[in-house]
Amino acid sequence: MRIAVDAMGGDHAPDEIVKGCVKAAKEFKEVTLVLYGNEQKIREVLKESYDNIEIVHAEEVIKSDDDPVKSIRRKKESSMVKAAYSVKNKENHALFSAGNTGALLAAGTLIIGRMKGIDRPGLLATFPSLSTEREVFNMIDVGANADSKPLNINQYATLGSYYSKKVQGIAQPTVGLLNNGTEENKGNELSKAAYAMLKENQAINFIGNVEARDLLNGVADVVVTDGFTGNAVLKTIEGTALSLMSVIKGTIMENGIKAKVGGLLLKDSLKEVKDLLDYSKYGGAVLFGLKAPVIKTHGSATAEPVYHTIKQIKGMLETKLLEELIHHFEGEEQK
Amino acid sequence: MRIAVDAMGGDHAPDEIVKGCVKAAKEFKEVTLVLYGNEQKIREVLKESYDNIEIVHAEEVIKSDDDPVKSIRRKKESSMVKAAYSVKNKENHALFSAGNTGALLAAGTLIIGRMKGIDRPGLLATFPSLSTEREVFNMIDVGANADSKPLNINQYATLGSYYSKKVQGIAQPTVGLLNNGTEENKGNELSKAAYAMLKENQAINFIGNVEARDLLNGVADVVVTDGFTGNAVLKTIEGTALSLMSVIKGTIMENGIKAKVGGLLLKDSLKEVKDLLDYSKYGGAVLFGLKAPVIKTHGSATAEPVYHTIKQIKGMLETKLLEELIHHFEGEEQK
Repeated sequence: MRIAVDAMGGDHAPDEIVKGCVKAAKEFKEVTLVLYGNEQKIREVLKESYDNIEIVHAEEVIKSDDDPVKSIRRKKESSMVKAAYSVKNKENHALFSAGNTGALLAAGTLIIGRMKGIDRPGLLATFPSLSTEREVFNMIDVGANADSKPLNINQYATLGSYYSKKVQGIAQPTVGLLNNGTEENKGNELSKAAYAMLKENQAINFIGNVEARDLLNGVADVVVTDGFTGNAVLKTIEGTALSLMSVIKGTIMENGIKAKVGGLLLKDSLKEVKDLLDYSKYGGAVLFGLKAPVIKTHGSATAEPVYHTIKQIKGMLETKLLEELIHHFEGEEQK
Repeated sequence: MRIAVDAMGGDHAPDEIVKGCVKAAKEFKEVTLVLYGNEQKIREVLKESYDNIEIVHAEEVIKSDDDPVKSIRRKKESSMVKAAYSVKNKENHALFSAGNTGALLAAGTLIIGRMKGIDRPGLLATFPSLSTEREVFNMIDVGANADSKPLNINQYATLGSYYSKKVQGIAQPTVGLLNNGTEENKGNELSKAAYAMLKENQAINFIGNVEARDLLNGVADVVVTDGFTGNAVLKTIEGTALSLMSVIKGTIMENGIKAKVGGLLLKDSLKEVKDLLDYSKYGGAVLFGLKAPVIKTHGSATAEPVYHTIKQIKGMLETKLLEELIHHFEGEEQK
């Protein structure tokens, strides 16, 4: 199993990327990590050599504010583009980056290419579910495709179901359509048309509309939506959780000694809450619907999230998730 | 100032509606509340008589699962429809309900009617801002119009600006467009087209795109978006805050005596956080763009939110917000 790593992407690259890779390489001997980037800088962090870490020097870097499509076309010597070509050429089996999201989407689509039967790839993210029934849920599309069509949403549902089955081991994952009410007739034109297609999709266990209010309560294993709404919901969850935790901290500091002691006594509980909300332990966001796994972690990712993402990619490769999906969509084409 | 109240709408009607009205009537002598609903049931809660509370008997009730448009057309003797006609006929100046949202939207649009220059009304909700710079922000549309057009979003911006100026006293309210990135070229087709119109809107102080992650940090006084995305964001804020508070409570209960004592010591702080998040104190959601104020509170509203909503409506009437808006849009028409 060979994973191409864009060692130069992200706010803390290459340091935290390399550190996360070292942790993963030590634990997963069956995985070879191929680090693309400035060799000297990578070696400074790497210090010693590992049997399952290789370095491929790349002269250029795609920056976070570079134009996605232009940078992919022009920066041929960048770590991300070279890593993407290695996956296209089957030297490596998956692509990992914490860099420019738009550029990674472009590299995935333009260099590695779409899976047969998929019109547009979608971005899948895994979140904690706070219900006792399920530990996590997946939402797709959280931002690959701002103008999704009903057909795209229906394909996301199939992709998400396979992900939940193979990576999370859910036998019959439930799929809900994010909508502005739970009744069948609810929604905008897009979600109504998507509903009609999802109802007929034999590859999924569709449970109808779900509301954003119930997401964290674990209303479904897979939640599908267009990339604009999904992006807004993802960022609202992040923003609300962060704001709330900082307000709690603020009131503890301002409410005198009693509150401070209370805060100290509650330290473990609040840490538990923070851990529960930390969805980086489920890995990065999957750019789903391409010929190989392409995974994006948060630009601010440190070694720990990088490690979790390598673990996630290993899971995707081991379970032959993409091979099964390719087989599934080939069957659909022949119908 | 006469406000028509649908005393039968909401989960706790008429009891909590009437109790909230009594509190408001005692405090605001200049406001007359006209309660539409089952007279006997209302009198049971009202107990004594007040100079500024009137009752108009209504035989029927529109239920939360009734079809909006059908129920408005068929249930002519319902509390909501009778109250709406009283506003149309200028017997009363504003309409208030905690009942079926869709039916209230239909009653507002079909009975009271749109303001000249407004193509579709939008639903405006006020949220707490956790920044030091501003106390609240307003988002419009949070769900009146699932398929908003760029033109609608541009009108929401003008409506929201006037609301922020008149009701919240902000001299130059900033307006942000909810989008999937802050750069000007970001977005889906709808938000890109809306951006172009907002940039040219002379009636507002447009600051560009804002992201959902920054909403609670008070990134703008007014945030505009289509009704589908706005509804998803509203419900995500609600759901995330509720889930988080319940997880914190859960970990306090499960982490032994130390955590329990901590929880007790932190009671005031956690109450402060809860109060901060309780946006019912800013009143209900305004169905904005109609000839008179039409306000919807949460179906689960108790007396306190009902009271706050009456206070909010009083503010809208006193400041002659709608008169100014009507004047503004008439000027736009003549251009």
